[in-house]
Amino acid sequence: MPYVNIRITREGATAEQKAALIKGATQLLVDVLGKNPATTVVVIDEVETDNWGIGGESITVRRQQGK
Amino acid sequence: MPYVNIRITREGATAEQKAALIKGATQLLVDVLGKNPATTVVVIDEVETDNWGIGGESITVRRQQGK
Amino acid sequence: MPYVNIRITREGATAEQKAALIKGATQLLVDVLGKNPATTVVVIDEVETDNWGIGGESITVRRQQGK
Amino acid sequence: MPYVNIRITREGATAEQKAALIKGATQLLVDVLGKNPATTVVVIDEVETDNWGIGGESITVRRQQGK
Amino acid sequence: MPYVNIRITREGATAEQKAALIKGATQLLVDVLGKNPATTVVVIDEVETDNWGIGGESITVRRQQGK
Amino acid sequence: MPYVNIRITREGATAEQKAALIKGATQLLVDVLGKNPATTVVVIDEVETDNWGIGGESITVRRQQGK
Repeated sequence: MPYVNIRITREGATAEQKAALIKGATQLLVDVLGKNPATTVVVIDEVETDNWGIGGESITVRRQQGK
Repeated sequence: MPYVNIRITREGATAEQKAALIKGATQLLVDVLGKNPATTVVVIDEVETDNWGIGGESITVRRQQGK
Repeated sequence: MPYVNIRITREGATAEQKAALIKGATQLLVDVLGKNPATTVVVIDEVETDNWGIGGESITVRRQQGK
Repeated sequence: MPYVNIRITREGATAEQKAALIKGATQLLVDVLGKNPATTVVVIDEVETDNWGIGGESITVRRQQGK
Repeated sequence: MPYVNIRITREGATAEQKAALIKGATQLLVDVLGKNPATTVVVIDEVETDNWGIGGESITVRRQQGK
Repeated sequence: MPYVNIRITREGATAEQKAALIKGATQLLVDVLGKNPATTVVVIDEVETDNWGIGGESITVRRQQGK
């Protein structure tokens, strides 16, 4: 019954990529801890680049600077 | 001063239904723990069905399969 | 398949009270949105009073001041 | 390497204001705990006023009542 | 710069198992989305079985019933 | 009515330091967005170093390597 929350910036992840994250995170919990996949929940949050900061700057600004 | 975060898939919950979740969750904390409703916060997150997985599959896929 | 996270201060909630929160929050999602209780997850976080603030002060300090 | 999540209602915060939150929260962790800003992450979630409740009512309703 | 939060019940996960979750979740973000592992954060929360509910019951009660 | 969640590793933050985080984060929301401090909630989570990873490694391991 684990709950996994994956937070990424909203930069065009496809439905196929998100399905791969869900499948992979679920399998990780099965492999490492023997958890039941049927009750393992994975939720992906996509966050605007203005709303995500690292190093005191937003990702929007960092992308403009080529970081 | 509790904080309650309710995460559901985005599938058409109405403003009335969301008001009922806010009212009900607040009352639950009052009834069970005697918390002060004036400082009880409830936040509802609605998540795209592509972004929510259970059993290793997205809800989008499960809905298509009639699960 | 909703996920509900209830965050409260750690001030002696009993196993019975926590069971009542789990039961009540699950029932709320059934009643308001017709969700399936079998896949509804409720997680309660108990937080030290030094680690919870409102109005710019910790709950520890507010309790000492009789607030 | 701290992670700071700031949740506010979606009521028109500008990119400049969000940049100020990111900068300010990062600096706070540097000033108080000596954390490394390069690995300090700040994520801002903007939540619809229908989806945020306090005192058992949504912010939408409270705004209409002039609260 | 993704942030992954893995929430599990506190039932004896070892440091080695937790290291495997950290390594595996980080690699998943690299493989699926090409994210930079150096700024990928993984946080594991271990939650008491009294504080985790599914199907309206705590995990403590479900374990006693052999579920 | 903002909600701020600050997550740090558990490495001896004092009650005074945590009070400073609460005061500073609350003031930041007042200064940048004009929020009401009386309903601004700050919650600090302290996480074991085995349970926090960056770059695919736990903080426990990174501390041992002098990172």
